[in-house]
Amino acid sequence: MNNVIYLDNAATTKPLNSAVKRAEQYLFADFYNPSAKYHGGITAKNAIKNARSLIEKQFGINYEVIFTSCGSESDNTAIFSYLKRGNAVTTLGEHSAVYEPFTHFKNNGYDARFASLNEDGSVNVENLLSLVDNNTVFVSVVHVNNETGAINDINDIAKRVKAKNPRVIFHSDGVQAFLKVPFKPNGLIDLYSISAHKVGGFKGVGALIKHKNVKNLKPLILGGGQENALRSGTENVYGIKTFEYAVEERQCVLKNYENALELKNAFLNNINLSIFKVISSNNSSPYVISISALGLRGEVLQHMLEENGVIVGTGSACSSKHPHSRILTAIGYDKKVLDGVLRISFSPETTMQEVLTAVQLINEKALQLKKAIL
Amino acid sequence: MNNVIYLDNAATTKPLNSAVKRAEQYLFADFYNPSAKYHGGITAKNAIKNARSLIEKQFGINYEVIFTSCGSESDNTAIFSYLKRGNAVTTLGEHSAVYEPFTHFKNNGYDARFASLNEDGSVNVENLLSLVDNNTVFVSVVHVNNETGAINDINDIAKRVKAKNPRVIFHSDGVQAFLKVPFKPNGLIDLYSISAHKVGGFKGVGALIKHKNVKNLKPLILGGGQENALRSGTENVYGIKTFEYAVEERQCVLKNYENALELKNAFLNNINLSIFKVISSNNSSPYVISISALGLRGEVLQHMLEENGVIVGTGSACSSKHPHSRILTAIGYDKKVLDGVLRISFSPETTMQEVLTAVQLINEKALQLKKAIL
Repeated sequence: MNNVIYLDNAATTKPLNSAVKRAEQYLFADFYNPSAKYHGGITAKNAIKNARSLIEKQFGINYEVIFTSCGSESDNTAIFSYLKRGNAVTTLGEHSAVYEPFTHFKNNGYDARFASLNEDGSVNVENLLSLVDNNTVFVSVVHVNNETGAINDINDIAKRVKAKNPRVIFHSDGVQAFLKVPFKPNGLIDLYSISAHKVGGFKGVGALIKHKNVKNLKPLILGGGQENALRSGTENVYGIKTFEYAVEERQCVLKNYENALELKNAFLNNINLSIFKVISSNNSSPYVISISALGLRGEVLQHMLEENGVIVGTGSACSSKHPHSRILTAIGYDKKVLDGVLRISFSPETTMQEVLTAVQLINEKALQLKKAIL
Repeated sequence: MNNVIYLDNAATTKPLNSAVKRAEQYLFADFYNPSAKYHGGITAKNAIKNARSLIEKQFGINYEVIFTSCGSESDNTAIFSYLKRGNAVTTLGEHSAVYEPFTHFKNNGYDARFASLNEDGSVNVENLLSLVDNNTVFVSVVHVNNETGAINDINDIAKRVKAKNPRVIFHSDGVQAFLKVPFKPNGLIDLYSISAHKVGGFKGVGALIKHKNVKNLKPLILGGGQENALRSGTENVYGIKTFEYAVEERQCVLKNYENALELKNAFLNNINLSIFKVISSNNSSPYVISISALGLRGEVLQHMLEENGVIVGTGSACSSKHPHSRILTAIGYDKKVLDGVLRISFSPETTMQEVLTAVQLINEKALQLKKAIL
């Protein structure tokens, strides 16, 4: 698959070759177990310490990094730690790694509450706040929606949630936001999930970012006591180092954001609005664009595009077993919109030429499909 | 650290270069998300299917593979699925990834029971059986002890446990046994944990092997429903493929076993028995030898050896925060033995020349240390 234009970076992003190459030292030369007491083990332990330190810097001095195996594990660790008493509130716009654990607790009789969404997929903040009460122990709000790119102002939401109940633990799934949207947590964000393979690392590595004052976080995996006893299991040094180096290379968040915004604007200026409805709003993440080819089937269009070298998504890759997007259904879109959904998502490596070629092909193939149906 | 003789393979093993190189296809060219519906996603999905199939072959047609992020996660998934009612039985010779979850349940009021050990670290089977009763729901017995190499005959133990209570779910941590000790489960082993980085894959990948008839296994991580809804999170395709290729290269289990046995015998024939007590028994795994330099401190000896290019362990790397080995303490060894423990562990790549050089150096340095103390 050479010369392919890959625009499904919200599903996964090609690892940065340079980051992988730098990390290879920890795969072969310094492959030792970080718990070992000899020189090689200490080298591996220090290598993790440096990675931790670099990632912590993205969040500020009050935050600590717990390395995990993926964003889903980070989300589950947060949720399973706190949904034991009282009630918990999340949104209908969550990734399945938050939505499914909440649903699991609800199905087992726990008082799990789901806030409704605005038309662009952002949470209806007034509705969310109305669900928070004195017994609420945990609130989880996705930072950037993985299907529409809608940005939730989590600093402000956390502030308003804690004004109602200061004892709430506030978590956010930041997998689609980390290094994409300029952001510093304001100290009211208690926990924040990130993933390596969305930012140039590879699959199998994630982290849960924890405010230093957060108490009662419980490990999902018990054992050797790694990660300050919050995540046992031999550390994935090679994966963690690749993550670190990818973060290092992607630190120019604002510059990349502005570049992605140009791509988004070029895409939206060129997409044929007589065929496509744009679901993403103006102030969504510039890395994710959700559109719908009204009356057409998104997956048919997806395959036509793929045959011509352009890869796009049709919604969350994680929910491919369901016919329609759970999130877009929750927003209230009808079948005509839901059938035709395409998700176009960029990485910092995506070029303007790729976007212009892609949008032209998307228009062309949609028109072709429309004519074939009529 | 060139020309180092690395004899701490039970802690972690250097990944097989050839396996990593073959798997690189799934890091860069076929980096796609296995849940994606386009060609690249299907390629990634099929790649995992092939890996699953190869690993399943090692266990027989009644067994399925659930990929996880490590052996500890596999152990925890099994334990957290079943320790809900009745009682559960394990041994004092478990890796911390089994021992700590059992202890956690015990500390929370659950009836978790621990069987005693024989002198070589194998479980006292009569004691184990005496702990199994009509209310026992789960039994976990490590296959090969990670400190002494003691082999538990888990097929026979499972048979005897189920003769007492056929409803028991029988789990074994096979991390130190997989591809090391010739073994086929007899159908009474319900769950079996393995890890990639002990057999030539890299850290961050493991699997839980499940008998097809096993019911009520619960995912530790909920979300996108990957791994047949038993382990959510985007699959670590690159790590899984490296695991597969390493398993493929290490399939000559018996040949490697016999080779390791020659290394073990050469080591034991040459170790100075006027200084060292041999803890491992004759019928332990040939890959792990536990010895104790009576009256000396193992970690001092370890550092002296490291300065001369030989790397050995001092016990489980995972329990480095404790002064003495929990397992050897449970066997009943006194301080004099516990202080002096060294663990020497081989991989199929270890050569006879390395072992002979190492054992000579171990004798020499122990003698030197002994003289310095007296």
